[in-house]
Amino acid sequence: MDQREELELAMTFDGPQAEIKASTVIRNIGQLVTVAQQPIAGASGPLQVIQDAALAIYKGTIVWVGTEDEGEPWFQQAATASKDGIKIIDAQGAVITPGFVDSHTHLVFAGDRAEEFHLRRAGVSYGELLAQGHGILTTMTATRKADTETLLTLARERLASMRQHGTTTVEIKTGYGLDMITEEACLRIINSLNAFEDTAITPLERMRIVPTFLGAHSIPPEYRDRRSEYVELVIEQMLPAFVGLARFCDVFCEREAFTEEESRRILTRAQELGYNLKLHADQLSPSGGARLAAELGATSADHLDHASDSDLDAMREAGVVATLLPGCSYTLRSPYPAARRFLDHGLHVALATDFNPGTSYCENMQMILGLAMSEMDMSLEEALTATTINGARALALQDQVGSVEVGKQCELALWSIKDYREIGYHFGTNLVQSALVER
Amino acid sequence: MDQREELELAMTFDGPQAEIKASTVIRNIGQLVTVAQQPIAGASGPLQVIQDAALAIYKGTIVWVGTEDEGEPWFQQAATASKDGIKIIDAQGAVITPGFVDSHTHLVFAGDRAEEFHLRRAGVSYGELLAQGHGILTTMTATRKADTETLLTLARERLASMRQHGTTTVEIKTGYGLDMITEEACLRIINSLNAFEDTAITPLERMRIVPTFLGAHSIPPEYRDRRSEYVELVIEQMLPAFVGLARFCDVFCEREAFTEEESRRILTRAQELGYNLKLHADQLSPSGGARLAAELGATSADHLDHASDSDLDAMREAGVVATLLPGCSYTLRSPYPAARRFLDHGLHVALATDFNPGTSYCENMQMILGLAMSEMDMSLEEALTATTINGARALALQDQVGSVEVGKQCELALWSIKDYREIGYHFGTNLVQSALVER
Ligand SMILES: [Zn+2]
Ligand SMILES: [Zn+2]
Repeated sequence: MDQREELELAMTFDGPQAEIKASTVIRNIGQLVTVAQQPIAGASGPLQVIQDAALAIYKGTIVWVGTEDEGEPWFQQAATASKDGIKIIDAQGAVITPGFVDSHTHLVFAGDRAEEFHLRRAGVSYGELLAQGHGILTTMTATRKADTETLLTLARERLASMRQHGTTTVEIKTGYGLDMITEEACLRIINSLNAFEDTAITPLERMRIVPTFLGAHSIPPEYRDRRSEYVELVIEQMLPAFVGLARFCDVFCEREAFTEEESRRILTRAQELGYNLKLHADQLSPSGGARLAAELGATSADHLDHASDSDLDAMREAGVVATLLPGCSYTLRSPYPAARRFLDHGLHVALATDFNPGTSYCENMQMILGLAMSEMDMSLEEALTATTINGARALALQDQVGSVEVGKQCELALWSIKDYREIGYHFGTNLVQSALVER
Repeated sequence: MDQREELELAMTFDGPQAEIKASTVIRNIGQLVTVAQQPIAGASGPLQVIQDAALAIYKGTIVWVGTEDEGEPWFQQAATASKDGIKIIDAQGAVITPGFVDSHTHLVFAGDRAEEFHLRRAGVSYGELLAQGHGILTTMTATRKADTETLLTLARERLASMRQHGTTTVEIKTGYGLDMITEEACLRIINSLNAFEDTAITPLERMRIVPTFLGAHSIPPEYRDRRSEYVELVIEQMLPAFVGLARFCDVFCEREAFTEEESRRILTRAQELGYNLKLHADQLSPSGGARLAAELGATSADHLDHASDSDLDAMREAGVVATLLPGCSYTLRSPYPAARRFLDHGLHVALATDFNPGTSYCENMQMILGLAMSEMDMSLEEALTATTINGARALALQDQVGSVEVGKQCELALWSIKDYREIGYHFGTNLVQSALVER
């Protein structure tokens, strides 16, 4: 359908809106959950829901949002014109929300860590697991060994699963290469997943991909006794070489990974080179990561289990999004993030899968949203905000995706339900019928 | 494919097994997780897993289980004969387990309770919810009003979803009619879902359905001030009338529902009439339900959050299965069942969805298994046992389903994974490719 020539239909509305050009119409939407950040005419509630809604799109951009009734005369005209190329999508009374924005994943890797998972469950300690050769370096080894085609195939399968569950934008981090060649290869793979002109990616599979360089994920074994050299490698060689390949630079600022000072050096250099910043901060211990995120004006700080109240205040002042990752708590059987604390501090809270083979093997943002509602005392409104517009904020994409508003891109989830309040309540199955992306 | 005439192929094996007749072969099974209760040759681990396995079926019954190598000469012969009707299924290296046995559901109802769910989350108390007209009687009203076709359609959709997630046997309770006419109508609907000759149910949709009469689910509003009359109605009219329509009689033995003494009277009469027994026991308070289940030799007692140690001992002595329902804890944000306590008491523990619109709107046994592993400290081995053979025990069907052994029915789940240890570890998406049922 993307091969179709996009005809332009000039429409005139009564009232404040003048002439609007549109190429696609979605009508008969039972509930349009806009998650708009500005009040929308005809919408109600904290999520700005429009009953019996419709919307119009021009070349991938939402140009009009309203009720079916308002659009009716327009649709008549569109129907007449449709044989000439205007595309009309009938939502058949279903719910439409923004597509999920999964702002934290480690999606490109080979191998799995099922054995480690079950050993951990059986009580084997982290130290013993490392001694037995498990942990992040297992994935590094498998990823270094894998060829590009294998990594690409695995990544595409995972993205397809994410999309089937309603995700339309995915951030993907490197960090299982940990050498110049593999980190670059992974960044090129991530970027190729984004390539809309890639004929191997059909229109239906297309997602918005945001590449993040996480060379500072762990000290690779060959640098174990000379960690400062690895930090120099990241700063002096990787960062300059990957400008243009990654939008973000992330660092695992943690006792077992990179110190606050190492993180500051890496991220400061990244910022100079034009990267936006993210941090894995205060996950296992108070690492100074949240404070550093505020100091450097990072876009998001993620995990944050051990961040202090003053850290959260500093993050709010600096406009840093707090990204919470309940999939890790589910997997590790550790306490869930205290979402209410972050909300009470006035922070923008995002939720993401943290899809990775060690601590959160989950593609499905509905599962993450459900855990947030069941385990973190978030309301449906808060959880839907956290998985859409706040995910977009965590990627500095809030002007492009994450809500259904005029000027945003058409990246939506079409649900197989008639009332959005079924989300969270009806759990364990995929309630999304399809992702709905128009370019 | 069920229209095909079933040819019989006589096979001779070397060794202890003599001639075996088979009509269907499943070969090339990467891992066959038998969950056998007796040691199986070539199998290992607590779940009795056979690597590179195969099995043979004759008219719906498993007649042989072994390795691909053992079966190879036989498959050669079957392949030659296959054009004459022998059915050969290639599992392509995937995992096969017993189909899930969901031993506790309230699947036949109309309406939903999303509003109640979100109000409860917003802090509205149970009493206030009832005062506002929410609760079980909402569902009763909607179910009484619904016509048979509506109830049947809803039930079929739910069963289809369950089956897509690997469930092959489902217990279904009445209890939203609470009058003679609607309880009978619901029982007839439940039985019709089981009817294998029903042409509206295609072979692919067929599931094993176990009907349970739960007239004693709640006191209906018209009997609010004369509850003993409702108990008499259940005992004197409903129970005798529904003999043959229900395999089990269940009672909600709870402060807000039926007393221990009322429950005893109902269940004793049911037992006299030939029903097997189940109890909703000790869910919200110590109701005496678990003790009563032991006293009467019930097949299972379910929920059990407030059962005492001596109750559990009595249940073990009487052979009562303990059925735990984590979906309720997920929905109500209440503590999860203490599975280890039940396991330590030597009880057979089953897990079920408790699919119902009030406290567990979930069709997916994989979700329940995942919650048990994450929240209830159950291992994969324990959780798979609880969702298969112990579910069968909770329905007195352990001789027919719940494991892959000679003599059992062919009711299996075919997974889209190569290693069963991915179950529980890889979460939030449907890892089952299809249910695999042969009659
Ligand atoms: Zn991460
Ligand atoms: Zn129940």
